[in-house]
Amino acid sequence: MAVNLPPPDPASLHPVRGVELGVAVAGIKKPDRKDLLVVRLAEGAAVSGVFTRNRFCAAPVLLARQHLKNDIRALVVNTGNANAGTGEDGVKRAMQVCAALAHHIGCEPNEVLPFSTGVIMEPLPVERVTAALPRALLDRADWLSAAEAIMTTDTVPKAVSRKVRLSGGETVVTGIAKGAGMIRPDMATMLGFVATDAGVPPKKLQNLVEQAAAASFNCVTVDGDTSTNDAFMLIATGQGPVAASRRDLKVLEEAVTAVSRQLAQAIVRDGEGATKFVTVRVERGRNADECRRVAYAIAHSPLVKTAFFASDPNLGRILAAVGNSATDISKLGLYLDDVLVATGAGRHPSYREEQGIAAMRKAEFEVRAVLNRGRASATVWTCDLSFDYVKINAEYRT
Amino acid sequence: MAVNLPPPDPASLHPVRGVELGVAVAGIKKPDRKDLLVVRLAEGAAVSGVFTRNRFCAAPVLLARQHLKNDIRALVVNTGNANAGTGEDGVKRAMQVCAALAHHIGCEPNEVLPFSTGVIMEPLPVERVTAALPRALLDRADWLSAAEAIMTTDTVPKAVSRKVRLSGGETVVTGIAKGAGMIRPDMATMLGFVATDAGVPPKKLQNLVEQAAAASFNCVTVDGDTSTNDAFMLIATGQGPVAASRRDLKVLEEAVTAVSRQLAQAIVRDGEGATKFVTVRVERGRNADECRRVAYAIAHSPLVKTAFFASDPNLGRILAAVGNSATDISKLGLYLDDVLVATGAGRHPSYREEQGIAAMRKAEFEVRAVLNRGRASATVWTCDLSFDYVKINAEYRT
Repeated sequence: MAVNLPPPDPASLHPVRGVELGVAVAGIKKPDRKDLLVVRLAEGAAVSGVFTRNRFCAAPVLLARQHLKNDIRALVVNTGNANAGTGEDGVKRAMQVCAALAHHIGCEPNEVLPFSTGVIMEPLPVERVTAALPRALLDRADWLSAAEAIMTTDTVPKAVSRKVRLSGGETVVTGIAKGAGMIRPDMATMLGFVATDAGVPPKKLQNLVEQAAAASFNCVTVDGDTSTNDAFMLIATGQGPVAASRRDLKVLEEAVTAVSRQLAQAIVRDGEGATKFVTVRVERGRNADECRRVAYAIAHSPLVKTAFFASDPNLGRILAAVGNSATDISKLGLYLDDVLVATGAGRHPSYREEQGIAAMRKAEFEVRAVLNRGRASATVWTCDLSFDYVKINAEYRT
Repeated sequence: MAVNLPPPDPASLHPVRGVELGVAVAGIKKPDRKDLLVVRLAEGAAVSGVFTRNRFCAAPVLLARQHLKNDIRALVVNTGNANAGTGEDGVKRAMQVCAALAHHIGCEPNEVLPFSTGVIMEPLPVERVTAALPRALLDRADWLSAAEAIMTTDTVPKAVSRKVRLSGGETVVTGIAKGAGMIRPDMATMLGFVATDAGVPPKKLQNLVEQAAAASFNCVTVDGDTSTNDAFMLIATGQGPVAASRRDLKVLEEAVTAVSRQLAQAIVRDGEGATKFVTVRVERGRNADECRRVAYAIAHSPLVKTAFFASDPNLGRILAAVGNSATDISKLGLYLDDVLVATGAGRHPSYREEQGIAAMRKAEFEVRAVLNRGRASATVWTCDLSFDYVKINAEYRT
């Protein structure tokens, strides 16, 4: 059902110097599927990240946040169990995984970052994870295999890669992601990992991951539910050219953002029950907050989303969402793709419904609200609300 | 499909002295259905109201807000057309309806309150409305008939009545409502009209309508979409006993609130596709804002609502919604009806899933989040998100 989301071509995914991947079958939830990923980092690699703001956050999130203060030598990711809603015991189990991996590779437990995704409120089967670690360490996996090992209800593995030239030479940016940050707190989790072989000063790296997140993972929504395990990590191994100049940093930021954005959009394209991929763009607002508020009001409205599903240019629903969230709609211009369909006063005289239907029948289209009261803008990517969304979420677990 | 919502018994609906009702078939959208209601008020009646906060509000809302400054002699309500998103022309048409009714009954146009409900962004067929006014004025309708005349996609007419004793004698509170304030911006509108024959000073009456709205219509949600035409009016004709003392006002407020609440709950019970009626109660929060934020986070989460539909006690989804909205969840107690199912640390050790399933299989149950960090509380009534919700909203208009 994924919208315009073919599986990644393995040949397009460039390895990243200083990153070694290994996957294994740990049997955490389902037998015979790759459900454990170990990412080993060369000495000197820098890691930064952003995490869910959900107060009910998972044990591995709590630990990863702490451990990020140290030099990081490895990341360990399991699917099948989110280790969320598991209290103190969950933290203990996550720490046991870190300790076991640290023991194998010869580092401190707090130099390992743990990540989990899967069902909430079940104890993490820590013995199965630790038993599979040696196999993962012996394995030599590519990025596609790594992307597969972190999938839960994803129907397509998500991996993106590109190369850019810095002043010191060519650098690689490759990343993987799974889930949809705001769609499945039960399967729990959006995870994103992007790595580059460029060298980036740690302070700049944190800045870079925050900027990339703001322009990618923080711009997608399926149903407005923020999960308990969301994490987005950016690794810079420093095995390639150093991004030293402002220009280099800018080039690298653009590449990281482009990779992150493509991963984030892949999550929406693979959203539960999605049949449409919709870009909601709000322009010329007073400030970014206003623009985001309006964009999310449109993107979260169940009435708007069911209209997307039905390819129904139901302007009243979109305008009502704008009217609920914008500060002033007197100068509003509302567009479906390039067609001006309505203003603050209602339907535009030149608009004919066939135009709206033609736009919304497509698998991808844009809703654009121009507020005409400032210079800020915001973009949110979302999908429709279909029968299958209800089916998947009503039938899961039952 | 309405959840535990039998049609009102006409004998239970007490007439209100000083209020005359008349309905007519105006043919606004469908032929042969009552779609026009005129409410005439005896001289001296006081009217107060609250309206939608949607900036994209309908023409009749703009006019009714202005006219409320004057003594009101009549209300006119049409279904079939919301007169929303119609700009200046819409205001002119709403004013034409007021003028026509004022002419018939001998008052000023700005002493008439207009209300509309139905499709958005279509011009109000004002001639059909005005042509039907004489028939409505000759008609003598009861409250049930009035409730029927304002229905749109409602499957059950909504009317509630009770009597209470004030120091000066018995007084009647009777009301009608339609729609669901946050469910159908397309059919556009929650309307509520409650009348009493008690005499209430105008200033107190505004206070009373705001308090009643806060404890009734402002506590329901189906899908979080606030419509463009929402209006809730409270009429006090003064033909019965005067509510003079503090005690009288208190008794009257309780009766008005009880009638309003029952009407508001009826709207949720009749919510599109609803199969469950769920009370979400948040207790012992730091302040009312926090409690309402948490209650709405639960009540608006599509994942929680699909779990309601499936009778699936999916605690992770509810806890994630609490974690996204509460300031502190360290002392949380989460209950399904009377069963403590989870705390901030996760599933409660004594909880067994059969208990949760037993609670959620019922057509009505309560989700209660006790924050244990203050003395405030809030209640929101909502329904589930079913296949039929998507069906109704995806197929409507297509």
